[in-house]
Amino acid sequence: MDERLKRQLDFALEIDKEKNILRQTHLSEHGRRENDAEHAWHMAIMAYLFREHSNESVDIAKVMLMCLIHDIVEIDAGDTYAYDTEGLKTQKAREDAAKERIFSILPEDQKQELISLFDEFEAFETAESKFAHAMDNLQPLMLNNSNGGNDWKEHGVYAEQVYGRQRKTSLGSEKIFEVVDQIIQENIKKGTIKE
Amino acid sequence: MDERLKRQLDFALEIDKEKNILRQTHLSEHGRRENDAEHAWHMAIMAYLFREHSNESVDIAKVMLMCLIHDIVEIDAGDTYAYDTEGLKTQKAREDAAKERIFSILPEDQKQELISLFDEFEAFETAESKFAHAMDNLQPLMLNNSNGGNDWKEHGVYAEQVYGRQRKTSLGSEKIFEVVDQIIQENIKKGTIKE
Repeated sequence: MDERLKRQLDFALEIDKEKNILRQTHLSEHGRRENDAEHAWHMAIMAYLFREHSNESVDIAKVMLMCLIHDIVEIDAGDTYAYDTEGLKTQKAREDAAKERIFSILPEDQKQELISLFDEFEAFETAESKFAHAMDNLQPLMLNNSNGGNDWKEHGVYAEQVYGRQRKTSLGSEKIFEVVDQIIQENIKKGTIKE
Repeated sequence: MDERLKRQLDFALEIDKEKNILRQTHLSEHGRRENDAEHAWHMAIMAYLFREHSNESVDIAKVMLMCLIHDIVEIDAGDTYAYDTEGLKTQKAREDAAKERIFSILPEDQKQELISLFDEFEAFETAESKFAHAMDNLQPLMLNNSNGGNDWKEHGVYAEQVYGRQRKTSLGSEKIFEVVDQIIQENIKKGTIKE
């Protein structure tokens, strides 16, 4: 087998480990905790179906690929909960090391391509990145809301924290942010998000 | 909220259930059984990275979307193991009913679009469908091989059965089939696949 294909296969096997990285979000119908791979799958389909709601027109194939790979670094770095203040301080350093190790398994051109796509997602500047982030925010909010807001309740999350993250959703989609805002308001009213 | 967006959100929540549909394949490092959503995520990334090995040039965004949605019908129809002769007889009828129910949650145009994409995958005629099938075949074979072929051993699978499915991999990618063939031969030698 040639070296290029071998590296591609090694990478494909390596990323299988993303299925073991658990998030704080629970599946709908009060299910178990979700893992990163499922989350990425869900986001990518949502991006495709909701693309008409993006503020700016997007290269949807790029958005989908961005969604699919954006959490691969968590194989080494672990999932950092959106409201974990301590974890957030070290997140970048942990993810940079992971990025280098994991994408280096690929042939050089594909390594550079995926790192560039990952960096673009993180930088939050392009239309594709903003819309992918909107999906990254909407997907767990939708699941959590379907479970009566239990994930927020369990972590004692404040409205300010949720808005701190979700206001950026409006950069990708004003329309999706309206939905998000409505869900947050309902959960504040119910007391599952603290005022 | 407008009706169109509501239907899109309802569908997004509905497909969360795909994460509960277990396959016969086990995750690498002798992990738990894989679910359909993880499998689809894995296939979509592999399709992107391996696209240079497709026999014919493909619209990769279409292949990725096909990979992502190809098992949604299993939310109702369940996973049918590739070597379950009885299950295979009723698979089409079960999946047709599921397809109608689940995709009908979407706005009509998106329902038709996804059904058409699902049907294209199933028909195995276009370059995109053939390459997506190659990924659908390679992904579990890769995981199973990484676990010493335990899934084949457990189910007492014969070489003829594995080839019956995997020969079609060559319709999508001769190059990938060479890898598949090598893995099958190694597993026959080890006795994990029966001759």
